[in-house]
Amino acid sequence: VDEFDLIRRFFGTRSTGPGVVTGIGDDGAVLDVTAGFQQVQVIDTLVEGVHFPPQTAPFDIGFRVVAVNLSDIAAMGARPRWMTLALTLANQGEDWVQEFARGLFAAADEHAVALVGGDTTSGDQAVATVHITGEVETGTALLRSGASAGEGIYVSGTVGDAAAGLQLLKAGERDDDLCERFLRPAARIALGDSLRGKASAAIDLSDGLAGDLRKLLDASGVGGTLDIERLPISAALVARFDSDAQRRFALTGGDDYELCFTARADDVANIGDITRIGVVTEGAGLVCRIAGDVGEVDDSGYRHFG
Amino acid sequence: VDEFDLIRRFFGTRSTGPGVVTGIGDDGAVLDVTAGFQQVQVIDTLVEGVHFPPQTAPFDIGFRVVAVNLSDIAAMGARPRWMTLALTLANQGEDWVQEFARGLFAAADEHAVALVGGDTTSGDQAVATVHITGEVETGTALLRSGASAGEGIYVSGTVGDAAAGLQLLKAGERDDDLCERFLRPAARIALGDSLRGKASAAIDLSDGLAGDLRKLLDASGVGGTLDIERLPISAALVARFDSDAQRRFALTGGDDYELCFTARADDVANIGDITRIGVVTEGAGLVCRIAGDVGEVDDSGYRHFG
Repeated sequence: VDEFDLIRRFFGTRSTGPGVVTGIGDDGAVLDVTAGFQQVQVIDTLVEGVHFPPQTAPFDIGFRVVAVNLSDIAAMGARPRWMTLALTLANQGEDWVQEFARGLFAAADEHAVALVGGDTTSGDQAVATVHITGEVETGTALLRSGASAGEGIYVSGTVGDAAAGLQLLKAGERDDDLCERFLRPAARIALGDSLRGKASAAIDLSDGLAGDLRKLLDASGVGGTLDIERLPISAALVARFDSDAQRRFALTGGDDYELCFTARADDVANIGDITRIGVVTEGAGLVCRIAGDVGEVDDSGYRHFG
Repeated sequence: VDEFDLIRRFFGTRSTGPGVVTGIGDDGAVLDVTAGFQQVQVIDTLVEGVHFPPQTAPFDIGFRVVAVNLSDIAAMGARPRWMTLALTLANQGEDWVQEFARGLFAAADEHAVALVGGDTTSGDQAVATVHITGEVETGTALLRSGASAGEGIYVSGTVGDAAAGLQLLKAGERDDDLCERFLRPAARIALGDSLRGKASAAIDLSDGLAGDLRKLLDASGVGGTLDIERLPISAALVARFDSDAQRRFALTGGDDYELCFTARADDVANIGDITRIGVVTEGAGLVCRIAGDVGEVDDSGYRHFG
């Protein structure tokens, strides 16, 4: 595939949008930033065979590499604006690129994100890196570091679905709702925006609730207690897995791309589709509570102490 | 190598600088942009075995992946400010990463560019993508599209050295100045800045003078005539190669990372280290002139017409 031709055919024609003075086709993009706003920048890479099986549909890869970046933007409370793409191709042909581009724009268009630049290269395996620039009113970005003892710990939507879906996909299924949760992560942009000035700290769930929440607590210099029985588990997950597996997926599964955040209860009383799952404590570390028992979470899920 | 540990040890400690509100360690970087400035964004990838031989020193790779992006920033007349890194590693160990980081920061520190975010992943070969954000006073960015008939065509420094150096490197040499030109490209940031308001169009030389100049002329809707005998050839290149090879390297060699631009002679009379190498014409396409003969440039260098 000729690089220049490929970029122009599948990506270049879409390089316009609010704030885009010069898009793809010059040495760099020229962008009009918004007065009174700070910028949030994120970058994330998907590697063939590592982050997705080689036979994954190119549409899903294109969608996903944008969505995982959007999720980071959401966790900062920012509005996504512009993206750039670095795409390394191995034996992928034009059809693959066209489908990849379709997925990429499907995820981007939902939030009016313009593709303003890119680089395509050849390699031994497909590697897709997307960089997204967002904007947030100065001083209002959600950080991981603002949680205080006494605040509630919240999570959006349901957790564990994507990891369960990945397991089903690996077993050859595709039709379950759980698979869809893995393949089409939905970044919580609107929720992130509505949490500005209300949540004290936030993080997006990419590696698993327990691990990601620990990062938030560490960054804030506090501890936390999680009520295992309050974890929001979807009907789809309940329908396919027993309660041990549900909890393992929910706590350590990853790929949920929901937001986990801390806040005082009054401040988030009017926010929808969130569940209070625990409380911020003095000290450090994360403990879990289930049926009066207290324990910890490791890779296999919940384990009671001693 | 543990990803989080690696980022923090080799990259995270350097994540500060002017305008950096929150650097590495949160879901995204938070940046203070400059009022009255537009942004310029660029992204470029180096792939092991494609853009550099597998045995290339990791310092050189780190240096280069920043420098080629800085060169795009220079061609826009912008000031580089912040960068993010997406690094895919295969069998590279800690020593490799440490040297890569040293090269990366050597190139970045020269222009006070802060690393504000990144993602490290595993793959079958090393792939390094850097995204750089620059700033330029609103309305003054240098584009490829502003050239007019009658203006001069200029190039900075000398051309052809890097391609000759790459040939020597492939033959096992390392000590020649030409090799250094390939291994340590110097982005023309100061020159790009001084050309704002003076040059009518600009491009950086990554693929070779003839091809890159053609892109500029096409973007501007004009043609051009190049005086082959005016090409600035270094003493180092003259010392090692005959005149045919010199011209082939200079016209089609690539990797120079000099700036090629168009301007009226009066406007750039006080700009140093530049050479007038031709003239912008009506029409389209690039022709070359040598000793009264007129011809064209293909991959083997200059060829007279007919």
